[in-house]
Amino acid sequence: MLNIGILGCGRIGQVHAGSIAHVDGASVAAVADAFPEAANALAGKTGASVMSADEIIASDGIDAIVIGTPTDTHFDLIQAGAKAGKAIFCEKPVDMSSDRIRQCIETVDAHGVMFLTGFNRRFDPGFAAIQARIAAGDIGNVELVTILSRDPSPPPVSYIKSSGGLFRDMMIHDFDMSRFLLGEEVVQVYATGSALVDPAIGEAGDVDTAVAVLTTASGKICQISNSRRATYGYDQRVEVHGAGGLLRAENMRENNVEIATEQGFRSAPAQNFFLERYAGAYVAEMKHFVECVASGTSPSPNIRDGLAAQMIADAAAQSLETGVPVKLG
Amino acid sequence: MLNIGILGCGRIGQVHAGSIAHVDGASVAAVADAFPEAANALAGKTGASVMSADEIIASDGIDAIVIGTPTDTHFDLIQAGAKAGKAIFCEKPVDMSSDRIRQCIETVDAHGVMFLTGFNRRFDPGFAAIQARIAAGDIGNVELVTILSRDPSPPPVSYIKSSGGLFRDMMIHDFDMSRFLLGEEVVQVYATGSALVDPAIGEAGDVDTAVAVLTTASGKICQISNSRRATYGYDQRVEVHGAGGLLRAENMRENNVEIATEQGFRSAPAQNFFLERYAGAYVAEMKHFVECVASGTSPSPNIRDGLAAQMIADAAAQSLETGVPVKLG
Amino acid sequence: MLNIGILGCGRIGQVHAGSIAHVDGASVAAVADAFPEAANALAGKTGASVMSADEIIASDGIDAIVIGTPTDTHFDLIQAGAKAGKAIFCEKPVDMSSDRIRQCIETVDAHGVMFLTGFNRRFDPGFAAIQARIAAGDIGNVELVTILSRDPSPPPVSYIKSSGGLFRDMMIHDFDMSRFLLGEEVVQVYATGSALVDPAIGEAGDVDTAVAVLTTASGKICQISNSRRATYGYDQRVEVHGAGGLLRAENMRENNVEIATEQGFRSAPAQNFFLERYAGAYVAEMKHFVECVASGTSPSPNIRDGLAAQMIADAAAQSLETGVPVKLG
Amino acid sequence: MLNIGILGCGRIGQVHAGSIAHVDGASVAAVADAFPEAANALAGKTGASVMSADEIIASDGIDAIVIGTPTDTHFDLIQAGAKAGKAIFCEKPVDMSSDRIRQCIETVDAHGVMFLTGFNRRFDPGFAAIQARIAAGDIGNVELVTILSRDPSPPPVSYIKSSGGLFRDMMIHDFDMSRFLLGEEVVQVYATGSALVDPAIGEAGDVDTAVAVLTTASGKICQISNSRRATYGYDQRVEVHGAGGLLRAENMRENNVEIATEQGFRSAPAQNFFLERYAGAYVAEMKHFVECVASGTSPSPNIRDGLAAQMIADAAAQSLETGVPVKLG
Repeated sequence: MLNIGILGCGRIGQVHAGSIAHVDGASVAAVADAFPEAANALAGKTGASVMSADEIIASDGIDAIVIGTPTDTHFDLIQAGAKAGKAIFCEKPVDMSSDRIRQCIETVDAHGVMFLTGFNRRFDPGFAAIQARIAAGDIGNVELVTILSRDPSPPPVSYIKSSGGLFRDMMIHDFDMSRFLLGEEVVQVYATGSALVDPAIGEAGDVDTAVAVLTTASGKICQISNSRRATYGYDQRVEVHGAGGLLRAENMRENNVEIATEQGFRSAPAQNFFLERYAGAYVAEMKHFVECVASGTSPSPNIRDGLAAQMIADAAAQSLETGVPVKLG
Repeated sequence: MLNIGILGCGRIGQVHAGSIAHVDGASVAAVADAFPEAANALAGKTGASVMSADEIIASDGIDAIVIGTPTDTHFDLIQAGAKAGKAIFCEKPVDMSSDRIRQCIETVDAHGVMFLTGFNRRFDPGFAAIQARIAAGDIGNVELVTILSRDPSPPPVSYIKSSGGLFRDMMIHDFDMSRFLLGEEVVQVYATGSALVDPAIGEAGDVDTAVAVLTTASGKICQISNSRRATYGYDQRVEVHGAGGLLRAENMRENNVEIATEQGFRSAPAQNFFLERYAGAYVAEMKHFVECVASGTSPSPNIRDGLAAQMIADAAAQSLETGVPVKLG
Repeated sequence: MLNIGILGCGRIGQVHAGSIAHVDGASVAAVADAFPEAANALAGKTGASVMSADEIIASDGIDAIVIGTPTDTHFDLIQAGAKAGKAIFCEKPVDMSSDRIRQCIETVDAHGVMFLTGFNRRFDPGFAAIQARIAAGDIGNVELVTILSRDPSPPPVSYIKSSGGLFRDMMIHDFDMSRFLLGEEVVQVYATGSALVDPAIGEAGDVDTAVAVLTTASGKICQISNSRRATYGYDQRVEVHGAGGLLRAENMRENNVEIATEQGFRSAPAQNFFLERYAGAYVAEMKHFVECVASGTSPSPNIRDGLAAQMIADAAAQSLETGVPVKLG
Repeated sequence: MLNIGILGCGRIGQVHAGSIAHVDGASVAAVADAFPEAANALAGKTGASVMSADEIIASDGIDAIVIGTPTDTHFDLIQAGAKAGKAIFCEKPVDMSSDRIRQCIETVDAHGVMFLTGFNRRFDPGFAAIQARIAAGDIGNVELVTILSRDPSPPPVSYIKSSGGLFRDMMIHDFDMSRFLLGEEVVQVYATGSALVDPAIGEAGDVDTAVAVLTTASGKICQISNSRRATYGYDQRVEVHGAGGLLRAENMRENNVEIATEQGFRSAPAQNFFLERYAGAYVAEMKHFVECVASGTSPSPNIRDGLAAQMIADAAAQSLETGVPVKLG
C-alpha cells in the first residue's frame, strides 16, 4: 500500500484524492492545506489525517506526496520532499522559472526520488491512443502535428496578471503534448497572439488568442492554436499527420443525441468543464504514478519533461515579444 | 451508337434524357409525349426528333425505348416495344397488376428483348457499394436488413387516390432494395400503418406512416419503415447486419459545413429532393442499361425483379387490410 | 441518510453498491448473499454488515432494499420487503409470471411502499435526453420509434434455456423503452425471429435474431430489432420520429480517435460491455431511487411499468409461436 | 447569349468548357490551343470553332475569354484581351510576378473589362456557405482561421522546379481563402517548411510540408498547413473561429457507407481528385463569371484578389528563406 500525502486541498487536490480512491494499492494517508477548513473537508471525505505540509514530508508513514499548492510554493516543497525521499507528483508548472526547475532536477536526481509532472493530457484516453499508435508505427514517420485548445471562457483578469501569461499558463499543456507526439525535441518556436476576447487581457499585458509554430531538427512541424473562448464547450483536439496517414481525436460531447429538424442535424456541445473532460485522464495519471513508484520506473512525463515544456513556453513568450522565431537548446 | 427513344417527356423522361448525355455510345434519337409542348421542349434540349410513341416503336432507326409515361400506359407500350424488338427501360412500377406484369414477361421472353425495371436506388453509389461488399463477403451471411425511407412531404391527396397505396407507390422501392440486399426471396410479409401525417390520406383509404417485416426461407429478416414526412430532408437509409459486421449508408447532406455555438454542433439537412439525392444513381442506371444492351447481358433489376417487388407490395397491402402476415410464392 | 440493504452480491449487486457510494444521503448498511464469500467481499469494500436477507428485511435500521438475487427469488423478497415497509429497488424482470407481478402490485399498494423496477436504460444520459426532448415538445407528436439492441455475443445455451426466451430476457428492455418513448400504451404486438447466430439456441427453443412491431391505440408504431451478436461492440440505439423532426442516440465508442489511411477513416468500436456502456445510467438510476424515497414520489419506472413490459414480452412470445399479431389489454 | 472563347484546351480548359454547358445564357463559341489535336477534340465535344488565340481575341463574335494556357502566356493574353474589350476569366496565378500583375491591372482598368481570377475554392459549396455565414454574422467577429490543404501525392520534380515553389503553386489557394474568410487584409506572414515527403523536392530547392501564420491589422490570425501527401485522399478543410462560435467544413467522402467490424467503424476515404472534389465549385465559378458579365458587376475574386494572394505568396517564400516574419503593404 502506497501512503500518499496530499499537499493542497483545493480543486486539483480534491481531484487527485478522488483518483486515488480508484487506484488499487494506494490510499490518501494525510492531507494539508493553509486553510484548515479545506484540509478538514478533504480529510472527512477520505478518512485521512490532517497534518501540516512539513509534518507530512517528515512523516515516515508517508511514501509519496501530491503537490497541488500554488505554483510559488512548489520549489520549497519539492526540495524538502526530495530530501525526505518522497516520491513526488507535482502539478504543472513545476515552477515559473526554468532555472529553479533545474535546481529541482539536481535535488531530485541527488536523492534518487521519483517525480511525475502533472501534464494530465498525456493520459487522456484519446491522446494516449494516438501516441500509442504513433509508437506502433501506424502512420509512419510523423511530419505535422496540429493541436487546438480553447477554454470555454477566460479566467478573471486578476488571475491573468499572475499567471505568467498564456504561453506559460495555458499553451504549456500543448507544448508538452507536442513533444509527446513529435517524438523529437523542439529546436525553434515562433509565436504570435492578440487580445481579441477581452481588451482587459491585453491591457494586463497578455494575449487571449495565440498560435505557435514549433520545428524540430529533422524538420517536423507542430502548429498550436489557443483561445480563451469557445462558446460550444471546452475544445481540445489533436491531429497528427504521418507518412502513412492521419490520426485525430475529436472532442467529447455532453451526450450522443442528435436532433434533426428543418434547421438540420444538431448534436450536443463539447463537454464544458476540464474536470469532466479529463476525468478519465486524472485517474489514469494517478495509476501511472502509483505503478511507477511500485516498479521503480521513471514516469512519463517526468521532471525533465516539465523543464522542457517550460523552456518552450519561455521561448514562445520571447517570440511574441520580439516578433521573431526563437531558438532553443 | 445506341439510338434511344424517350416515351414521356415529363420530369422523369427529362432526367433520363439528361443521363443519356453522360453515357458514351448512346444518344436520344427521338422523343414522344401526349403534350406536344413537352416533346418539343425536350427535343430542343437534346436535338432529338419529335415523333409519336407508335412511330418511335415502329422506327428502324431506334434501338431502345425508355418508358416514362403514366403507369397505365406501360402495358401497351411494353407489348408493342417487345414485339418490335426494342430494348426496354421501363420506369417502376411495370404495372399495378401482377397478372399483367406476367403477361409482359411472356412477351418480353418470346421476343428475347432486354428489359430493365427502373428501380434507380440499386444504382445509388452508397447502396450499390453495400451490395458489392455483401457480395464480396465483407460481413458474412446477411441476417437482418433495416431500410428507412421518408419523403420530405406528402403528395397531394388526389395523387394518393390513384397511387395504388403507399406499399405499391412508395415502399415498393424498399421491397426491391430488400431483395437486392437479402440475396434471397421473401416468403412472408407483415405490414401495418397509420395515417398520422394527414388525416385526409386516411380518409382516402391509405396510410402515410408504415412498417413492414419481411422474412426469407432461411430466416433472414428485413424491417422497413416509411413515412410521407421528414422535416429534415429526404431520409434514405439502409443498414445490413451480417455474421461478421454491419454495413450502413447515411443520408447525403446539403453541404459539409458544421456550425458550433452554445446550442451545440449543427450540420446541414439531408438533400431534400429525390432528383438531387439520386442524381448519380440515374446516370449509373442508364450506363448499366446501355452496357447491358451492348453486351447482351440481362440487367439488374430486370422485369422479373419488377414482378417480385410488385408481389411483395400486394402482399403488404393485403397484410395491412387483414391484420395478419401474408405468405408469398 | 437512507440505509440500504443489498440482497444479492453478484455482479449487479456490486454495481448498485458502487452507485450508492456516488449518491449523497444514502449508504450501504448491510449486504446478503447465499454465498458467504460474495457477501463478505462486498461488505469488505463497502464497510457494510453481513446479514441474511431475512435479517435485513426485519431490521429496523434498514430503510430500503435492493433486490439483485435470481429472478425466482424476487417474489418472496418483494412480499416480505413490502410487508416490512421497506422501499424496494428490484432488478428486472420483477417476475417471469405476469400474474405473480400483479400479486406483488397488490402487496406493494397495500403497504404503500415505494417500488422501482430496474430498467436502467431509462437513465442512460442519451435516452433520457431523448425522452426529455419529446416531453418538451421538441419534435411534436411521436409517430414512429425504432429501437435496436444487439449484444456483443450470445450467452451460454444453458443460460438461454432458463432465460424465458429472448423476448422476456433481452427485448424486455426495449419494450420498456418503447413505452418510455411512445408515451402511450401498446395495444398490439407482432414478433418474429430466427436462430441465425447459433443453431444450438434454436435447438433450445429460442431465437437469437428477432424483430417486433408494436402499435398503440392512436396508430403510433414502434419497431424493435435484437440480435445476440454484434462484432463491433454493444450496439444500443434509439431513433424517434415525430411530426417536427427526428431524435436519435448513437452508440458510445471506446474512444474518440480516428485514423485515416488508404483504407479510409476508421474509428473505435462501440463500448463492448454493458457495465461500461451503462455506467452513468446505473448511478442516475440509484440517485432517482434515493430521491423518490426522500420526496415520497413514485419512481419511473415503477412496479406497474415492470408488469407492462412483461405483458408485452408475453405477447411477443405468443406472436412468435402463433405467427400472428397478439392484442394486449 | 455570352459567346466564350476558350484559350488552352488542356485539362482545365476542358473543365471550363464542361461548366459552360451547365450555365444558361453562355456557350463555347471558339477554342484555341497550341496543339491542334487538343483544340479539335474540345471543338468536337462542344460544337465550337477552332481558331488561334489571336483570332479569338480579334473576333467581334466573341464576348469573353477563358485563359487556361500556361502561366507564362497569361500576361500577353490579358493585355491583348483587355485591349480588345473582352471579359476575362483567368486561371490562377495571374502571373508569377506581382509587378506584371500590376501592369495587367492597369490595362484591365484602362479598358474597363471585367476580370475574374480563377480561385475556384471560393465557389466550393462548403467554403462559400462558411463565408456567407460569416457575412451574416452567425459567429460574430472572426478571430482565428485554420486552413488545411493536402494533395494526395506530390507532382513530378520536373513540375516542382518550374512551379514557383509550394507557396506560389499550392498554398496560394489558401492565401486567397484566408482573405476571403478573414475579411481583412493580411499585414504580416511567417512561413516555414521542410522536404519530408520526397528529398528530391528539397534538392530542387522547394519544400513539401509547410505552414504559414498570417496576421491582420486588428490582430486576427490565420494558420495554414500544406502537404504534398495525404494517403486518405485530397484533404481540404477550413475552420473559422469567431466570437460567437465555430464554422468548419469537413472533407467530401467517396461515398456515405460505413462498415463496422471488430476493427471498429470504417468509412470511405476523401474524394481523391481535385476535379471530383471541386466539380460543383467549377460550375458555380463559371455561373458567377457569366452573371457578372451580364450584370456589369465586379466578380469575386477579381484581378486585385489575384495580386493580393500573389503578394502573400511572395512574402511567405521570403519568410521561409530569411527565417523571420515578413511585413506586407
